[in-house]
Amino acid sequence: MQKRNATVAVIGAGDFIGSEIAKKFASEGFTVFAGRRNGAKLEPLVQEIEKAGGEIHARSLDARKEEEIISFLGDADKHAPLEVCIFNVGANVNFPILDTTERVFRKVWEMACYSGFLAGREAARLMLPRGKGNIFFTGATASLRGGSGYAAFASAKFGLRAVAQATARELGPKNIHVAHLIIDSGVDTAWVRERLKEREGEEAVKNLPPDRLMNPASVAEAYWALYTQPRDAWSFEHEIRPFGEKW
Amino acid sequence: MQKRNATVAVIGAGDFIGSEIAKKFASEGFTVFAGRRNGAKLEPLVQEIEKAGGEIHARSLDARKEEEIISFLGDADKHAPLEVCIFNVGANVNFPILDTTERVFRKVWEMACYSGFLAGREAARLMLPRGKGNIFFTGATASLRGGSGYAAFASAKFGLRAVAQATARELGPKNIHVAHLIIDSGVDTAWVRERLKEREGEEAVKNLPPDRLMNPASVAEAYWALYTQPRDAWSFEHEIRPFGEKW
Amino acid sequence: MQKRNATVAVIGAGDFIGSEIAKKFASEGFTVFAGRRNGAKLEPLVQEIEKAGGEIHARSLDARKEEEIISFLGDADKHAPLEVCIFNVGANVNFPILDTTERVFRKVWEMACYSGFLAGREAARLMLPRGKGNIFFTGATASLRGGSGYAAFASAKFGLRAVAQATARELGPKNIHVAHLIIDSGVDTAWVRERLKEREGEEAVKNLPPDRLMNPASVAEAYWALYTQPRDAWSFEHEIRPFGEKW
Amino acid sequence: MQKRNATVAVIGAGDFIGSEIAKKFASEGFTVFAGRRNGAKLEPLVQEIEKAGGEIHARSLDARKEEEIISFLGDADKHAPLEVCIFNVGANVNFPILDTTERVFRKVWEMACYSGFLAGREAARLMLPRGKGNIFFTGATASLRGGSGYAAFASAKFGLRAVAQATARELGPKNIHVAHLIIDSGVDTAWVRERLKEREGEEAVKNLPPDRLMNPASVAEAYWALYTQPRDAWSFEHEIRPFGEKW
Repeated sequence: MQKRNATVAVIGAGDFIGSEIAKKFASEGFTVFAGRRNGAKLEPLVQEIEKAGGEIHARSLDARKEEEIISFLGDADKHAPLEVCIFNVGANVNFPILDTTERVFRKVWEMACYSGFLAGREAARLMLPRGKGNIFFTGATASLRGGSGYAAFASAKFGLRAVAQATARELGPKNIHVAHLIIDSGVDTAWVRERLKEREGEEAVKNLPPDRLMNPASVAEAYWALYTQPRDAWSFEHEIRPFGEKW
Repeated sequence: MQKRNATVAVIGAGDFIGSEIAKKFASEGFTVFAGRRNGAKLEPLVQEIEKAGGEIHARSLDARKEEEIISFLGDADKHAPLEVCIFNVGANVNFPILDTTERVFRKVWEMACYSGFLAGREAARLMLPRGKGNIFFTGATASLRGGSGYAAFASAKFGLRAVAQATARELGPKNIHVAHLIIDSGVDTAWVRERLKEREGEEAVKNLPPDRLMNPASVAEAYWALYTQPRDAWSFEHEIRPFGEKW
Repeated sequence: MQKRNATVAVIGAGDFIGSEIAKKFASEGFTVFAGRRNGAKLEPLVQEIEKAGGEIHARSLDARKEEEIISFLGDADKHAPLEVCIFNVGANVNFPILDTTERVFRKVWEMACYSGFLAGREAARLMLPRGKGNIFFTGATASLRGGSGYAAFASAKFGLRAVAQATARELGPKNIHVAHLIIDSGVDTAWVRERLKEREGEEAVKNLPPDRLMNPASVAEAYWALYTQPRDAWSFEHEIRPFGEKW
Repeated sequence: MQKRNATVAVIGAGDFIGSEIAKKFASEGFTVFAGRRNGAKLEPLVQEIEKAGGEIHARSLDARKEEEIISFLGDADKHAPLEVCIFNVGANVNFPILDTTERVFRKVWEMACYSGFLAGREAARLMLPRGKGNIFFTGATASLRGGSGYAAFASAKFGLRAVAQATARELGPKNIHVAHLIIDSGVDTAWVRERLKEREGEEAVKNLPPDRLMNPASVAEAYWALYTQPRDAWSFEHEIRPFGEKW
């Protein structure tokens, strides 16, 4: 692995997608700054990346706090130029409209939209003086469709997509690539398998065909593909789903 | 005018669109409950509606306060069954991303999205037991497009649209018509004429062809058209623009 | 009924939607020019409209023939100024891609797209010198979504929508209202009831809740609503579905 | 270069995008079957690919002829399994609606939509028995937006997109990757530079910033990226534009 003088910040470095993104960019020579609510949970990721010869700085990070975002990205950038910022905080919930409390609605927005705005803005602030950079946001089916029971979640994801669009239109001509990755499927995580078991029984999970759910590593590859696009052919919206997905 | 045993709540009863909606429904026999931040500014509207023989209750209302929404809609419904709730709070701002403070981002969202969620949910709570009702939201170009400089505003409007969609899908089968009106143009208000003057000079405003900007009364007619749709042919999204608008 | 000095042309005046459109505009005082493949089948419609005191001219019309469209619309316009042209030819088929013959693909396109282009263009030619008019196209779910098995039908409907959009953008500023009505549901026709019986059994059809399918007369009302919009608040795309429809 | 036992068919192997796609896949070891209206014009491409050690079969091909498509793809598949079929025929024209002859409308559709249907269907027929394959279509801004003057072109491109969507939904679960590449910009071709000169003068073309127009080779890279996606994370729609493009 050849070391680069560049950092990638992964905000929302969860056990699945976020971790795979971190590993991918680490394996390509990036220094990784990984943040999640409870930084202690990043320990296995740190060990895996370091064992593979990569460099990672793991932090507890409440992405809803402006000052935490500022110092997290600022530290990353001091270490080596912040070249990529990936916002990957999720907050999937489903409630009938009458059962959606104002607390849930606000919290989901703070996690999935407001913190994405903070991350995008602060990344832009660091990247603009150098005239280059990449800011990527993780979206979902709910970024495009407000399904029954998804008032809170879809509202936050729609809102995040608007942040990404407005920022892409403003910063693209300044050589900053802003993209929005729409994962239109269940990703293969413990949580999704649990939901599937509830819905279709234990057998359904056992007999799940390979590649039927999206492998988190494939999401990481999609982000890498966005990163490597030449600037005369950037994608803003990039949607992916498994071959067998109904859509 | 024949009086109906029904109220319409207009949340965000501003000088232009909101007032025209109130007048339209009043003229059709609805009792109007009109709320806006500074209720005192509703005085001319009250006089106009009452002079025409209509009934209106005007209130100061901070739509971002859950308890105020609950009591505003509850009072409306106690007066006569709440048949229509129209959410019309706007918050149009344009800032480069770096100049979009967290305070602005949050405030725009609270005004244009969060308060819409509260209004929709509380209207639904009152309407569901009667098995009928109408909940309408005012959208804009920015509901569908995150233009440069519109991170805050578009994010809130996208988010509001998601609330409307999710609610429409959940409540439609329960005979509650949820719709989202997209006004894809400048509306003929003092504010829009001022912007036009800044951009194109005084002459441009003076020579503005008739019907080039959208008349607020035409928005009110569009809402009325939504209200009168038979339930076997409801619109969810209803977009309107002046004949000469570029799109 | 007050007679107007105006004609409406209904191209594709089938037994359900097209007939209801004709009846609606006849009842509002328009002279109707109704065309369908086999003009003899228009006899009951003629009788019904004339009995109600309306005026209708029924014709056999192959809308895929340029010269027939030209003479049909030309005759309508000679009778009284052509004020509204409604293109309503359908061609719903579903085939797996390998079973979609080139003949089917071409024929569906000729019926549902190419003839719509001819109708729109020739209506525009008659309307432009008078500086006003209305050109409306009937769309469907397949106008927005290419579902499995719908390569031919969706391709034609997507194509028709593009014709409508391009024409709306060009002619709107010239005071010609071009609109595209998306009927996102099954309409209550013999054909749809037959499909439902095949799929869900005779009981399902018998117990069909009222308003669950869209009444053709409601489509006609939607067209009338488009016609009556003020020009400072025109819709281009107008979508309707029954309250209970899943979408 | 390692030779693969696989062919790529490029239908519409024009001087710019099509040629670059051919070169890219040839350089990756694919045998190329390249077709365009006038096969003689493929001579430079043949020389370039063969000089680089690649294999290419160049043909005159009228993609609007079912039997020609069948024999072109059949021959390709006999040579080595048809693994990728790329449909890249364009037909960009702009006419006011009244000047759009039925001949133009039909011809643009035959070139840009109907022949795409034929290519997709026949590629599927060859790929399905092997249970794998890739079918990619080139789209444009006009695939999503019917701009003024684009009734013919947008109608064909909308129609092609529907073919791609319906086919993707049907064949995805059968392990055939169908994708639709939206090139939302001018591509750097002689034709586009000529238009630019007409519009903005010779200086504008001379001073064109690097990467301002899309390099055809970047389109080829985008197709390669689609080809290399793992099947648990396929894109259907893939849009690209240069960093400085207004959208």
